Amino acid sequence: MKQLLLIGIGPGDPQQITLQAVDALRRGQVFFLLNKGAPTRELLDARLQLLQRHVPEGGYRVVEVTDAARDGQARDYVGAVQAWHLQRAALYQRLLEEQLQDGETGAFLLWGDPGLYDSTLRMLALVRERGMDITVEVIPGISSVQALAARHAIALNRIGEPLTVLPGRQLARHGHIDNVVVMLDGQCTFTQVDAEALFIYWGAYLGTPDELLIAGPLSEVRDRIVQVREAARIRKGWIMDTYLLRRMPC
Amino acid sequence: MKQLLLIGIGPGDPQQITLQAVDALRRGQVFFLLNKGAPTRELLDARLQLLQRHVPEGGYRVVEVTDAARDGQARDYVGAVQAWHLQRAALYQRLLEEQLQDGETGAFLLWGDPGLYDSTLRMLALVRERGMDITVEVIPGISSVQALAARHAIALNRIGEPLTVLPGRQLARHGHIDNVVVMLDGQCTFTQVDAEALFIYWGAYLGTPDELLIAGPLSEVRDRIVQVREAARIRKGWIMDTYLLRRMPC
Repeated sequence: MKQLLLIGIGPGDPQQITLQAVDALRRGQVFFLLNKGAPTRELLDARLQLLQRHVPEGGYRVVEVTDAARDGQARDYVGAVQAWHLQRAALYQRLLEEQLQDGETGAFLLWGDPGLYDSTLRMLALVRERGMDITVEVIPGISSVQALAARHAIALNRIGEPLTVLPGRQLARHGHIDNVVVMLDGQCTFTQVDAEALFIYWGAYLGTPDELLIAGPLSEVRDRIVQVREAARIRKGWIMDTYLLRRMPC
Repeated sequence: MKQLLLIGIGPGDPQQITLQAVDALRRGQVFFLLNKGAPTRELLDARLQLLQRHVPEGGYRVVEVTDAARDGQARDYVGAVQAWHLQRAALYQRLLEEQLQDGETGAFLLWGDPGLYDSTLRMLALVRERGMDITVEVIPGISSVQALAARHAIALNRIGEPLTVLPGRQLARHGHIDNVVVMLDGQCTFTQVDAEALFIYWGAYLGTPDELLIAGPLSEVRDRIVQVREAARIRKGWIMDTYLLRRMPC
């Protein structure tokens, strides 16, 4: 039996991890750090620094792996994601077979919250379906949505209205917008919706020294967000951002 | 100028607060603990214990206040909530005038996350509208939704589907359910929706020694949740629970 900890480490501020996550860092024996390519070296290093800070005596192993890339051009989105997930599940299975012994505790350090727009839980469910005997313990983390709301000092929900959370590619198809949080939007889909009567609260690199915040009526700040976002992405080589669209008056 | 910290302290497990929240506990000079009636003495005490643990040297003041109760029978729900909020805003204003000096830092310890189904931000916006000069800093916290997902070891979102978060009273009116998280449902509204093809992940007192978890097809576990929930509510005098409804197959 192999034990796995999925540890949510928050959106970027090293102070935004819980005491429970710190305990979990100290329980892990093998840490799997999955790299999505060279530009995110900074994101890998930030996780190594968390380990060094909270487990200064060391004694753990770190396994750095380059994760498989997805075919971003495929027409069948859900099919492409599923094929990509199967490919990644094979990678995860091999990793756990080769790098984690029975009785050992492995850990994944995950940005944000393991239950919100992170695929590790899904990967491990696939690995289990393939016959591997693993137990999974999830340590929740602050998500970028919460950091966004905190930095703008707003509530995500309003009286009598639902809150919807969705990825960028679904926004364009989404009907009436009251309160919509968009995660993972590389395409600035907010430029494609009817801006009339909408307000946007946008944030990038939340909780880090590079943090960017813009809020205003969508029609007024839309272009500025696109420019600021693109300049930052080029400067740093990567960007993580999220936003809330809200029907006015706010 | 008066400074206020809104500190999210997570859903119940004292380990589920962030390092940032611990720092904020140490910065607060006056802590406002709002009590919603006798049965929640336990919830007040848990907050006092957090303070004692993280600020063992003391030196802060604690102001315990009984918050106004809402007219739960009113026909005009939004109107009743707004009237209640105005009444509470007057209470908050008086508190801040009488108990917090200019230049001091006050703090509210809030269960879960200050941005999700908590009205303190709204109260303080109303207080500001009434002319009081305050600054507000929000410290995000783990919400019960995240604790629910973590304990059931599930992702809240699924590929290509939105996640909706809403209060119980909106669930009955809500159309097609793919992934709906329900907060603040004292009426067990999950018994009023068409259970066909729905799965429920339910949890109460998440992260505490009293934690209760039930998951299964809604038609099979619905009655058991109602019974377990009611027995727990009577035994403890209060209950905090939340659930996710998901279209099967999960």
